Amino acid sequence: MSIRVAVLGAAGRMGSTTVAAVHAASDLELVAELEADGDVAGLAGVADVAIDFTVPQATEANVHALLDAGVHAVVGTTGWDAAALDRVRAHASTRPDVGVLIAPNFALSAVLAMRFAAVAARYFASAEVVEMHHPRKLDAPSGTAVHTAQGIAAARTGAGLGTMADATSTALPGARGADVDGVNVHSLRLEGLVAHEQIFLSNPGELLTIRTDSFDRASFMPGVLLAVREVVAHPGLSVGLETFLGL
Amino acid sequence: MSIRVAVLGAAGRMGSTTVAAVHAASDLELVAELEADGDVAGLAGVADVAIDFTVPQATEANVHALLDAGVHAVVGTTGWDAAALDRVRAHASTRPDVGVLIAPNFALSAVLAMRFAAVAARYFASAEVVEMHHPRKLDAPSGTAVHTAQGIAAARTGAGLGTMADATSTALPGARGADVDGVNVHSLRLEGLVAHEQIFLSNPGELLTIRTDSFDRASFMPGVLLAVREVVAHPGLSVGLETFLGL
Amino acid sequence: MSIRVAVLGAAGRMGSTTVAAVHAASDLELVAELEADGDVAGLAGVADVAIDFTVPQATEANVHALLDAGVHAVVGTTGWDAAALDRVRAHASTRPDVGVLIAPNFALSAVLAMRFAAVAARYFASAEVVEMHHPRKLDAPSGTAVHTAQGIAAARTGAGLGTMADATSTALPGARGADVDGVNVHSLRLEGLVAHEQIFLSNPGELLTIRTDSFDRASFMPGVLLAVREVVAHPGLSVGLETFLGL
Amino acid sequence: MSIRVAVLGAAGRMGSTTVAAVHAASDLELVAELEADGDVAGLAGVADVAIDFTVPQATEANVHALLDAGVHAVVGTTGWDAAALDRVRAHASTRPDVGVLIAPNFALSAVLAMRFAAVAARYFASAEVVEMHHPRKLDAPSGTAVHTAQGIAAARTGAGLGTMADATSTALPGARGADVDGVNVHSLRLEGLVAHEQIFLSNPGELLTIRTDSFDRASFMPGVLLAVREVVAHPGLSVGLETFLGL
Repeated sequence: MSIRVAVLGAAGRMGSTTVAAVHAASDLELVAELEADGDVAGLAGVADVAIDFTVPQATEANVHALLDAGVHAVVGTTGWDAAALDRVRAHASTRPDVGVLIAPNFALSAVLAMRFAAVAARYFASAEVVEMHHPRKLDAPSGTAVHTAQGIAAARTGAGLGTMADATSTALPGARGADVDGVNVHSLRLEGLVAHEQIFLSNPGELLTIRTDSFDRASFMPGVLLAVREVVAHPGLSVGLETFLGL
Repeated sequence: MSIRVAVLGAAGRMGSTTVAAVHAASDLELVAELEADGDVAGLAGVADVAIDFTVPQATEANVHALLDAGVHAVVGTTGWDAAALDRVRAHASTRPDVGVLIAPNFALSAVLAMRFAAVAARYFASAEVVEMHHPRKLDAPSGTAVHTAQGIAAARTGAGLGTMADATSTALPGARGADVDGVNVHSLRLEGLVAHEQIFLSNPGELLTIRTDSFDRASFMPGVLLAVREVVAHPGLSVGLETFLGL
Repeated sequence: MSIRVAVLGAAGRMGSTTVAAVHAASDLELVAELEADGDVAGLAGVADVAIDFTVPQATEANVHALLDAGVHAVVGTTGWDAAALDRVRAHASTRPDVGVLIAPNFALSAVLAMRFAAVAARYFASAEVVEMHHPRKLDAPSGTAVHTAQGIAAARTGAGLGTMADATSTALPGARGADVDGVNVHSLRLEGLVAHEQIFLSNPGELLTIRTDSFDRASFMPGVLLAVREVVAHPGLSVGLETFLGL
Repeated sequence: MSIRVAVLGAAGRMGSTTVAAVHAASDLELVAELEADGDVAGLAGVADVAIDFTVPQATEANVHALLDAGVHAVVGTTGWDAAALDRVRAHASTRPDVGVLIAPNFALSAVLAMRFAAVAARYFASAEVVEMHHPRKLDAPSGTAVHTAQGIAAARTGAGLGTMADATSTALPGARGADVDGVNVHSLRLEGLVAHEQIFLSNPGELLTIRTDSFDRASFMPGVLLAVREVVAHPGLSVGLETFLGL
């Protein structure tokens, strides 16, 4: 029996890619394509899972409406703060039959890389992060690289590791990158690239490199479909795709 | 209080590197350096942990003697088969106060890479392995690459994934590499290299690469020291350093 | 003054990408879009340069017609053999005012990588090639990887280098790759990739890696436009974009 | 007939490695091992080529003495400024039978990578440099990375390319690296590494990466020996090993 799926924000870039991916998945049935402010309540009994790729202004209201309608939610829209997450968590506690996943990143390789870096960090003397994106990106470092560095830093602290060795005494400004909780992060901007990250972890005599390359939006679809299939078995609010990966 | 450590095979290449590493660790005390056939029984009450880098002909007898002596064992010597492991497992069950770790590889980056590949494999459409070693190596692929491929293959089978897509119809012999349980493995032999591996996992639009570079024997020491510190808390037989990494 | 450009095979995949690229170039003016068998003679006096991305059955006739019409030609269509090239070379010698470039590959990174590998090869003890493509590719290794290996092999022979060191005595079939003139070439097929190559050159203590990643057809356009701008200054037949790169 | 070689500074780290390398080369004969301030004049008629790995305080005097003695010189000692080079150039013009090579870097992979980056730079929209060294290094970026970036910048200027695209408007300090003549350079410091560089050059749809890994001092020896063999055919002063590579 296939899972009945609705897509909210179906006309947008991510939404239309999602519509195509749901169509192509033999175990999923696309039952509705809505605009950002579509009739979510009407999905009750019609859709099992709704995927929200709308806009920050609409997504929280959509999730509350989906909870009321008894429809599981997979949310890729950004803009969630702690207060909004708390409101959803509270609401979800009243609907133990419904699951909500809110995830900033559905690229499996990026999510896995971040998790692997955090797991490995306690075993290495040094760690640095290099991210590479197209030159139209406005912020540096990327959110993914910042999260990766924060995960490494937290793991090092948890393992009782101190500051990393660095004897640099003469440097051009910026040469050693940005400091994110004591982990150096470097941002490259290169025409033609999309979203790429290299994580370096080293000890005397060895180097572990974890690299992710995202070439286009299609890279998010395996993660979105995995979330659709898993959310029905995860009641309550889950934050981050890694919570569904059994890592 | 420091851990008292004996090194068996202390004059060998790995043994002498280990002696130096134990000396350099402030929480470890080197109390004995033995030859491959040294007096293991005499370590009772003298050493807490013995590290065995001897030879296949001596290592099993050493481990049984260490169990009798109540000394924890960390074993990097190769040549263990299933029957020998079973004999140690049985013996160890009579000494619940003693831990034995037998590990084919103490390079943390290689052990972690193998584990990460096995965890990630179920989420990707394709996976291949490339290993690079110095040209004096006799076997191809390396044992590490074969184990990596086997772990990927087992994970794919467990997740119900089928054969990987490959439309190749015209190929030079060997171009597509060696088939290890359905995972293609490629071996490069390059002057000046030591031991290197690249694991590629991909989906539409994304590529995850896990790379390890071992430059010299020093790369095994963080794993050996970690094993020494952990084996005292792991009674019974453990096989593979990954069992101590909490992955 | 802009260069007037005609595109032959304008409705095809490469042709339509080319049409868009010519439109976007401020120093080029698109004056004609023809089908594979369009009226090439009619381009006389109308176009300065014609770009041929048609089919093997049509391309040679197009080039002869362009020579007759006094229009420079940039040809990316495959299927040219030595005899066909000789016929064009002879014809071109009668039209010293017209240039013809026939190139199997317009990706600048791939053309440069091939050239750099050939230049560097004489200085290194070992060299191997790894290429990675999508799993719908029918042949292995790729033509680019074979050419790269042949260039390395020719350079080694020219420098008096002998066979590369390789002590492999026990190997799974295919592990060491395909032998192309004594250079080992390895082909990976990974979902989501397009066209990628890694060239490894090593000596005791050092490794030089040249890597190219082509993510989509857009990667051919800088090379096509460069060819258009250069062909007017290169009368006669030129084969391979590298002849225009001043390497 | 073998080339007779003297090593100045034979007891130092580079000098002793060089002595071993000359011993191992069948076409070279080691005829003298001198300290930094040894009797250079006495090499006249004894040595064909002298290799200077001494100290900045001694090297210039050594080179002038070698010119007087009619002995070719290969110099790896650092500390040469423009005035000192001019003095050697003037002196060498009086001895047209003697060649002098002064080179800051004998690692062939690094020298070739620098040259390839400079050649390729004019064909790419974007270029950035990442260097990785051990954490005991005092300066950032490395001299090699600075030279690489300067070569890229000069090539871009020569080809009339403008500033690279970069829309970054919000950045953590240092995220975008150091600015070297308009080329961004990033320095990583990782325990266990020696000297490594990645050069990224990209266009829409394609990425060219040139990577060098130096694992130990042995990596300089192929370049030193090549210089010894070539310097006898290059009278006058040559600066940089690339002048002998026929690039």
